[in-house]
Amino acid sequence: MESRHLQSTRAPPLDLSHYFSDVTKNRQASDVKRFYKYFALPGMHNLAGGLPHMSYFPFDTLEASAAHPHRFEPTPITPVDPEPPKSNRNPAALHVKVPKESKATNVLSKIDLQTALQYGTADGYPPLSSFIRQFTRDHLHPNVPYANGPEVILTCGSTDGFSKAIETFTNPWIEHKDDIRDRSGILCEEFAYMNAIQTVRPRGLNIVPVVIDSQGMIPSGEGGLADILENWDFSKGKRPHLMYTVTLGQNPTGTTMPIERRKEIYALCQMYDIIIIEDEPYWNLQYPSAIQALDKPRGGDEHKLFNRNYNAHGRSSGYDFLDSLVPSYLSIDTDGRVVRVDTFSKTIAPGCRLGWLTAQPAVVERITRITETSTQQPSGFVQAMVAQLLKGQSSSAMTNRASKSDEAWTMDGWVRWLEGLRGGYERRMQNMCKTLDDGKYVVVDSAPGSYPDSWSMVSKVPMYEFDWPIAGMFIWIKIRYDTHPLLEIYGAEKVCSALWAFLTTKPFLCLAAPGLMFAPTAAVQEYAFQYLRLCFAPMPEDEVIDYAQHFNAGCRAFWQLQDFDGVPDLDEDMESGAGLKVW
Amino acid sequence: MESRHLQSTRAPPLDLSHYFSDVTKNRQASDVKRFYKYFALPGMHNLAGGLPHMSYFPFDTLEASAAHPHRFEPTPITPVDPEPPKSNRNPAALHVKVPKESKATNVLSKIDLQTALQYGTADGYPPLSSFIRQFTRDHLHPNVPYANGPEVILTCGSTDGFSKAIETFTNPWIEHKDDIRDRSGILCEEFAYMNAIQTVRPRGLNIVPVVIDSQGMIPSGEGGLADILENWDFSKGKRPHLMYTVTLGQNPTGTTMPIERRKEIYALCQMYDIIIIEDEPYWNLQYPSAIQALDKPRGGDEHKLFNRNYNAHGRSSGYDFLDSLVPSYLSIDTDGRVVRVDTFSKTIAPGCRLGWLTAQPAVVERITRITETSTQQPSGFVQAMVAQLLKGQSSSAMTNRASKSDEAWTMDGWVRWLEGLRGGYERRMQNMCKTLDDGKYVVVDSAPGSYPDSWSMVSKVPMYEFDWPIAGMFIWIKIRYDTHPLLEIYGAEKVCSALWAFLTTKPFLCLAAPGLMFAPTAAVQEYAFQYLRLCFAPMPEDEVIDYAQHFNAGCRAFWQLQDFDGVPDLDEDMESGAGLKVW
Repeated sequence: MESRHLQSTRAPPLDLSHYFSDVTKNRQASDVKRFYKYFALPGMHNLAGGLPHMSYFPFDTLEASAAHPHRFEPTPITPVDPEPPKSNRNPAALHVKVPKESKATNVLSKIDLQTALQYGTADGYPPLSSFIRQFTRDHLHPNVPYANGPEVILTCGSTDGFSKAIETFTNPWIEHKDDIRDRSGILCEEFAYMNAIQTVRPRGLNIVPVVIDSQGMIPSGEGGLADILENWDFSKGKRPHLMYTVTLGQNPTGTTMPIERRKEIYALCQMYDIIIIEDEPYWNLQYPSAIQALDKPRGGDEHKLFNRNYNAHGRSSGYDFLDSLVPSYLSIDTDGRVVRVDTFSKTIAPGCRLGWLTAQPAVVERITRITETSTQQPSGFVQAMVAQLLKGQSSSAMTNRASKSDEAWTMDGWVRWLEGLRGGYERRMQNMCKTLDDGKYVVVDSAPGSYPDSWSMVSKVPMYEFDWPIAGMFIWIKIRYDTHPLLEIYGAEKVCSALWAFLTTKPFLCLAAPGLMFAPTAAVQEYAFQYLRLCFAPMPEDEVIDYAQHFNAGCRAFWQLQDFDGVPDLDEDMESGAGLKVW
Repeated sequence: MESRHLQSTRAPPLDLSHYFSDVTKNRQASDVKRFYKYFALPGMHNLAGGLPHMSYFPFDTLEASAAHPHRFEPTPITPVDPEPPKSNRNPAALHVKVPKESKATNVLSKIDLQTALQYGTADGYPPLSSFIRQFTRDHLHPNVPYANGPEVILTCGSTDGFSKAIETFTNPWIEHKDDIRDRSGILCEEFAYMNAIQTVRPRGLNIVPVVIDSQGMIPSGEGGLADILENWDFSKGKRPHLMYTVTLGQNPTGTTMPIERRKEIYALCQMYDIIIIEDEPYWNLQYPSAIQALDKPRGGDEHKLFNRNYNAHGRSSGYDFLDSLVPSYLSIDTDGRVVRVDTFSKTIAPGCRLGWLTAQPAVVERITRITETSTQQPSGFVQAMVAQLLKGQSSSAMTNRASKSDEAWTMDGWVRWLEGLRGGYERRMQNMCKTLDDGKYVVVDSAPGSYPDSWSMVSKVPMYEFDWPIAGMFIWIKIRYDTHPLLEIYGAEKVCSALWAFLTTKPFLCLAAPGLMFAPTAAVQEYAFQYLRLCFAPMPEDEVIDYAQHFNAGCRAFWQLQDFDGVPDLDEDMESGAGLKVW
């Protein structure tokens, strides 16, 4: 009740139109909606719309076998929770069916091919977009501080959402043509998801990495956010007005930002009027067991990050699982300066090319205009199938059928599915981290050549180090090249690149992602060579440990090499850090 | 054989990079492909890719009931052909099924959820993109003149394809900021599809309409292409280097451009170095019966346009139906200056958000780069379902199954489906045009007020005129406001706008698309009021005549009004010609 009261007295979001790009400002709303009112008049003979009649669609149904939302076992919500009761190990698959024509009258629950395969509006298919809107506003971010809360628009995935946000907020800047004083900049983590960097780089933006620690971007200290903004060198262009950030299980470093850190960063963004583009593909993959591992040795309050959950102090999400997650920047976004991009890539499948963007209404309105003249909306095939899975036909449309409420997940099932996914990934994370921890030492002749031939100093040294990730899919490995016996002969960079190449050879056959691939600038490339990113997502679940063991074995063998003569030359492209699309 | 010989001695396409936008020039290829070679090594442990394992995809199959390709009756390929033999009126529906994992080893015929729902590459899902590439190069455009022919890339529909082409070839130009000498321009038909105009307008491009006749843009004469280019006023910006055109069943005017006209326009584009962006959603909806109706009264050679089919003089498409169609600009594109956008919106369904773009390889390469950082690729849901429908599982993957070759259409079935669709739309066109022809006259008191009260001059006058469209979905109605008895009282514009509004009232309840909605510039708005666009696509087939009769009845009643007092005020938005998305 109190939250409703607060709701009505909250301030509206700030006007961000001073940051809209020139093209974005020029966009005009299509008057299609005004025309639609005529379509809706009963008995109207529509001779106007250039729409093919649905009888010409060759698909008469879309159907699927789909998972029961209980397919995967959750892990405990907090580390001290007892294991949740085991549910049925192999709950029956659902049969999902989108009919050609539904009898439902409410467009929000009418899921059929007549509507899903027809032209639609840029905000998305009503049954799906209304579900997402409710999930986003009521459950995922129930405490957005500004009046009336955020709006959502469906996207063709996070890359599409991010691209549209960049289109909204930046003008291209061309070297040797435009004035340096017009050059915009974008802040990002020191190591970053390179597809995002490749999205902004051709537009001539300054890429400005912020130093990170295990909690993400650092607000103060050398290379931290305040340092960069206070001491901005205007000869390089404008002070950045955008920030690109992944705050939960950051790609590639796996770091997670607790709420206190968010508040510090947000305050700086307010001070310097910076728009935060938050990209969170891994938000539901947060691991209490890693938080426990992390907090304990640091003493004091156990599960520190965890207990600082923000939703717990505001309106509840309605689900213990969602309440337990570190919340979005949106939860502290009094100004409306946060634009969040979400995706179904990690919760349903990457091939969906389906996601959504959440921001204050005026920003979503501009992105709707961009969508009208680019993607229009995500494919009706995926929208209908996901809507049918998540929401199902309304009961009034379920004629001639027994009550089969299990044929759609509903909101409860969707949250349960997310919890089960978290369980699956958490077990993978534990298995890989434990295996890597167990195998990170090697016994080597610690200084060949430094001692007389007849002597040999044998010692146990670490080959790499890493933190258990609190969220996400990645383990960020720091190569301890300093312990490699051949360091003095080959140097640090060569030790690291040779390790990567050596791992790809038989019998190890391990492909790791080189840290150089995530270096957004030349300055970061200077020291990125010492990192590897490992992912515990792509392999079958029962092979996670085996993969990690292969990695360990490769490292051990590499630390025991007498020279690198047999190591293949590293592909030059790997050294360039040019970045890979899906990384 | 001869065509193969020609193939090898043809000149390559021109270098168009002088027209690439600054941002397009800046784009760099992702090195993902070089990395993929490591993925493919047998036994490699992939710890690098941030890909969720397919076991986490909740969809275990995708299935559908789909039409047999013979669902619709074709009309004769040439007007003089006998009716084709009737096929089975209701051929059985197909069951289409995409499994979780296919056993196929060739990626071009491996259609399964493991691949379709995973991350992919920007050129599209291999089984689908290879089918489209073969269809485009070998069947739809078998005679592209430049060496090695065009490439294709899948898009999220024509709007997406067009938007990417515009991104490729134009820099934004901002009034009061950029030099007028840097302003680019785009040529289009005098009346145009407004979503395309709304795509280019925010970028500050000059919109330059070219006068059209029943064969599309006119090359010579006042307002024709040569006139515009020769007499270009450089104080308005650069001479346009782009052309947006719909040459078959143009939206909204329904005009179709024969091959001779194409050659004239293309020669001018060569002379002035113009890139042609050809948008052809209706290319398979070409109507021999309308060609017959059109050619006959003009005397001489019957089926003139028709016999000038280009493919008939080059390499055959392999299908009589495709050979019978007026071909694309691509068929005369010696320079590689044609970028064609295609869509499945009118051949499968608009909600697919699926199409493809065809151009010389260097242009497709740039668009691939744009795709990598925006849409990535169309949704795997639609790609897999369409691939499965068109191509099916390879027979080697069809284990434990009887031979069910009818479970996929194959190329023959796809072309047959297109032919059947043409049949359906051709019958609609005939029914609506015939009904409109039959009802276009009204008997009125021809000059109320001009004669003494006791006199009344009764005459039969036409209320509108139109040509039967040779292709597409639209009938472009010219309102004969000059015959309306109240013209002198209300004026031409008011007569036309009142007609539109009156038609929406009971008992006529007809919604036509006002011509103003298709006026790309203020100058064209000056005379666009006198047109209406009718579409014979959106209603059930058996109601086409009824819809047209309602339109006729509304017109007749309107011509018999004594005043416009009871006519509702036209919604102002309708008068603004602001344009509607799907029109």
